Amino acid sequence: MPHSDALQRLLQHYRSMPPVAVMDLRIAGYDGQRLQLHAPLARHVNDKGCAFGGSLASMMTLASWGLVSLQLDAADIDADVFVADSQVRYLAPLFGDLEVSASLAEGEDWADFIKTLRQRGRARTHLVARVPLADGRPATTFTARYVAIAK
Amino acid sequence: MPHSDALQRLLQHYRSMPPVAVMDLRIAGYDGQRLQLHAPLARHVNDKGCAFGGSLASMMTLASWGLVSLQLDAADIDADVFVADSQVRYLAPLFGDLEVSASLAEGEDWADFIKTLRQRGRARTHLVARVPLADGRPATTFTARYVAIAK
Repeated sequence: MPHSDALQRLLQHYRSMPPVAVMDLRIAGYDGQRLQLHAPLARHVNDKGCAFGGSLASMMTLASWGLVSLQLDAADIDADVFVADSQVRYLAPLFGDLEVSASLAEGEDWADFIKTLRQRGRARTHLVARVPLADGRPATTFTARYVAIAK
Repeated sequence: MPHSDALQRLLQHYRSMPPVAVMDLRIAGYDGQRLQLHAPLARHVNDKGCAFGGSLASMMTLASWGLVSLQLDAADIDADVFVADSQVRYLAPLFGDLEVSASLAEGEDWADFIKTLRQRGRARTHLVARVPLADGRPATTFTARYVAIAK
């Protein structure tokens, strides 16, 4: 996988957070634009034998946060990244592992985001994430706004 | 606290789910209309020393789900309860324990919900939840739609 030093830093960052350390997540892929995370169903199963909604929301929140962090890392900017709001749609129960992917929302641009952050010390952007079922249809979809504040 | 048998069943139900068992939550109050949950910050802290967004979303999802479950328990109906969609606003970072409260959204009615579920085997309703800061202002707010399907 390219970007391996940055991904190693991200994984350590995830695991430094107690609520994330227990999620048993790993980075499943990153191509510079899309970050993929994986977590086992067994760790995130609810009373109905499918993935817990809160775990799905957390994984999509983390994947999107991680993607912003990787962009900042590549631009060598030290900033805190916060989620400002999020919308989740639970479309179908997921009876398999959680395979999350996050990317920039349509109409957004990383270069603009980085430029604004450098100029103003603060920038915001929208991300989208999803978790597919085994057949590729979405189990859950997520849209959220993130804010970065330079340290 | 009234309703103690039902609350004990709910707590066991929560703790039977692996992702919830690690959240160290307890039931902090229930008056028949509003369910309050508590979880310690130390278990849910992020890289910035405040509560992780995914934990806040999970706690609000669980409190709302628990409130629906308690209404079904009181009506002696055996049904699965699913979250269908949710919106979270993160308004201010929370540097204290997570004190979540959930209640029915304005304009909704438990009697209608139970009646529809008995008649059609399926019903939906909207809930709201929030987590306050120490001074009472909201740290996060949550609105969501839940669906119950009779077994």
